Amino acid sequence: MTEFMTGVAGKDTVEISEILAKDYEGKTVRVNGAVHTIRDMGDVAFVILRKREGLLQCVFEDGKTKFDLKDLKEAATIEAEGVVQSEERAPNGFEVRLTEIKVLSEPAAPMPFAISKWKLPTSLETNLDNRAIALRNVRERAKFRIQEGVVRGFRDFLYEEGFTEIHTPKIGAKSAEGGANLFRLEYFHRPAVLQQSPQFYKQMMVGVFDRVFETAPVFRAEKHNTKRHLNEYTSLDFEMGYIDSFTDIMAMETGFLQYTMKLLEKDYAKELKILGITLPNVDKIPTVRFDEAKQKVAEKYNRQIRNPYDLEPEEEALIGQYFKEEYDADFVFVTHYPSKKRPFYAMEDPADTTYTLSFDLLFHGLEITTGGQRIHDYDMLLEKIEKRGMTTEGMEQYLAVFKYGMPPHGGLGIGLERLTMKIIGEDNVRETTLFPRDLSRLEP
Amino acid sequence: MTEFMTGVAGKDTVEISEILAKDYEGKTVRVNGAVHTIRDMGDVAFVILRKREGLLQCVFEDGKTKFDLKDLKEAATIEAEGVVQSEERAPNGFEVRLTEIKVLSEPAAPMPFAISKWKLPTSLETNLDNRAIALRNVRERAKFRIQEGVVRGFRDFLYEEGFTEIHTPKIGAKSAEGGANLFRLEYFHRPAVLQQSPQFYKQMMVGVFDRVFETAPVFRAEKHNTKRHLNEYTSLDFEMGYIDSFTDIMAMETGFLQYTMKLLEKDYAKELKILGITLPNVDKIPTVRFDEAKQKVAEKYNRQIRNPYDLEPEEEALIGQYFKEEYDADFVFVTHYPSKKRPFYAMEDPADTTYTLSFDLLFHGLEITTGGQRIHDYDMLLEKIEKRGMTTEGMEQYLAVFKYGMPPHGGLGIGLERLTMKIIGEDNVRETTLFPRDLSRLEP
Repeated sequence: MTEFMTGVAGKDTVEISEILAKDYEGKTVRVNGAVHTIRDMGDVAFVILRKREGLLQCVFEDGKTKFDLKDLKEAATIEAEGVVQSEERAPNGFEVRLTEIKVLSEPAAPMPFAISKWKLPTSLETNLDNRAIALRNVRERAKFRIQEGVVRGFRDFLYEEGFTEIHTPKIGAKSAEGGANLFRLEYFHRPAVLQQSPQFYKQMMVGVFDRVFETAPVFRAEKHNTKRHLNEYTSLDFEMGYIDSFTDIMAMETGFLQYTMKLLEKDYAKELKILGITLPNVDKIPTVRFDEAKQKVAEKYNRQIRNPYDLEPEEEALIGQYFKEEYDADFVFVTHYPSKKRPFYAMEDPADTTYTLSFDLLFHGLEITTGGQRIHDYDMLLEKIEKRGMTTEGMEQYLAVFKYGMPPHGGLGIGLERLTMKIIGEDNVRETTLFPRDLSRLEP
Repeated sequence: MTEFMTGVAGKDTVEISEILAKDYEGKTVRVNGAVHTIRDMGDVAFVILRKREGLLQCVFEDGKTKFDLKDLKEAATIEAEGVVQSEERAPNGFEVRLTEIKVLSEPAAPMPFAISKWKLPTSLETNLDNRAIALRNVRERAKFRIQEGVVRGFRDFLYEEGFTEIHTPKIGAKSAEGGANLFRLEYFHRPAVLQQSPQFYKQMMVGVFDRVFETAPVFRAEKHNTKRHLNEYTSLDFEMGYIDSFTDIMAMETGFLQYTMKLLEKDYAKELKILGITLPNVDKIPTVRFDEAKQKVAEKYNRQIRNPYDLEPEEEALIGQYFKEEYDADFVFVTHYPSKKRPFYAMEDPADTTYTLSFDLLFHGLEITTGGQRIHDYDMLLEKIEKRGMTTEGMEQYLAVFKYGMPPHGGLGIGLERLTMKIIGEDNVRETTLFPRDLSRLEP
């Protein structure tokens, strides 16, 4: 006889939110979870289950089940039955008084460190070396729920604003930003690279959908080994056509941040609480020209300007400090970066071509976004390529979209791990990367 | 004076959906778009604008604007002003009678082929060689709106079911499925590979969040050059813990398909119509054992079983045909694949270890999903690795999650481009890939 699948099967187990949503007081429920920790008090023991929605306190009383507590190991997974009872000292305000325990799986060895501690008692190195285990810690995993909220906010906001999601290839013959810092591979006997950014593709797709976004990995073979750099990260990219000015892009990013902070408050309140996060102020974000920002910081903090065409990390930090002190601002858009520090496709400011119609967004003094208006005129683009002494070889398809007509457009890329790090208040981007890739780390 | 960004700026242009939502009849509006085509009828000309929401018919009448129609090129982008007027023969039932035209940008050359034709007048090869231009065709781009709907359905459904989204690294020291078919690269003087699947990582993350999903690129250096194969594609992956049986995974996938077809009907009706799509039936999806399916097909279509442990593509097609004919089913789950054709981590059927608790989902006879229950017991996993003559070297971190306890779990991977192709009724997966990567194609 043929059987059919008809949709998600009903479960006989309940989740924490289901117990909280209905009146389960005094009722018997079935629950499952991993044994996070066992506190044996003699006659009674607290068995804390780790579930996806949080911790669940179960109470084991001698003689109330046929189960021998000695047979229950930490890190075992179980399915259990018990009676729900209010208990204000328990997580979520209730506990389950156990009547039955069934072990689903058992560990083969005791945990290498106490993941059930509130703060993980390890160095970051040990944490990363044992990443999949360390992430079972409640605070560690909460960071990645916040990260989920950020990506979700990005997508949902942009859907509402008429953007279309795209998926562009990560292996290519050539990359947008040119030769340096590319991972190289052989693609069926041809040289290939991993994309540093979806830049070329998202611009091409503006000619198709006007507004596009992508949330995907990018690869940078940079030899930096700092707290801010990763060699693979998740880039939140968008690109939009028919802009009146590059400020439209900054306005869109501000909208995204406002939407996302509201989403975090609404759907990720539990994780914000676990991590003790105060969300940044995104009601209004000041803007400042690159050259003015340098000037302001030099004056206020009595600092010499060494290179007028670049921002050093310490200068970025001071700009953040300046706008926090002067405007209580968590973010600041630094605009009009020098042309020589921007890629060939950046639109120069017609008022002064030394500068571009581009920006970085700093969050507490750290760059989390680079964006700007792009050149959309075919001849202007060719001229710029020639001026830079670059070749158009391998860029024929990219250039074709301008040859056959493109609207004025611009966009940006946001480093997901950096943005998450700053929201959480961490100071190392590896803290907010599930499995970081850096100069020394290729595993796990 | 410091300026502030306060959110998305109001626009003085309107979109098609805004005009349709309100009563704009007789009112003057500003619109923008790309000139898709110009039909000059003498005194009057129809200027069709391509906008992200569809085509907009504008009417140019001599003397009504200061603009000379000769100055307007196809593929230019414009901003225009005009009066809205009902016109049932126009797309969306209205047109805009132009009073002002401002050219925003101009192409440098005429289009290489007529993208404004209903069906693109090119071969697939020419289409792919000029991909970014070809995608401006209204039918071509509609395919990728459908694709967006599929990914969106996947994520939104899984969020509702308590899954957490993850981002796992694509560069690694080792891959889940072993040595063959891997793209290799040098990672700071160390050998590395591109991940064929997030398999190891999503299993590791089940120990953290119980239920996880990822939508990301995977890379397969397979030397196939068929209509079904890509060397880089977008994989929709999920993995769930605390399953009672591997049928829970098939039930979850059925739920995803049901959710997604409803979403497409609701939010992508325009694209379904453009492409003439009849959505498949997903109310109930039959299941059949691998060995039974082979038998049924051999009997009904008078076909010899050549290899009892593998399904040939023609056999898959016939299984699809069989269940269409017998049950009017568009999908069928083929279950209990032979152990020798499944990876080491597949859970064997305790009733007969020649087979596994795994499945493929066929859509009109094409495999679009592989999934199943995984081994969660540390010792069983070690035994299986030994039995296969594999080494545990480089798998320490993966194995650690089982050593320190894992719930019964399983999951699946869905090929996004294949699923989209089958929904649309195309027969080449390149048709539903923005920029395909295959044996010969590394650009654009």
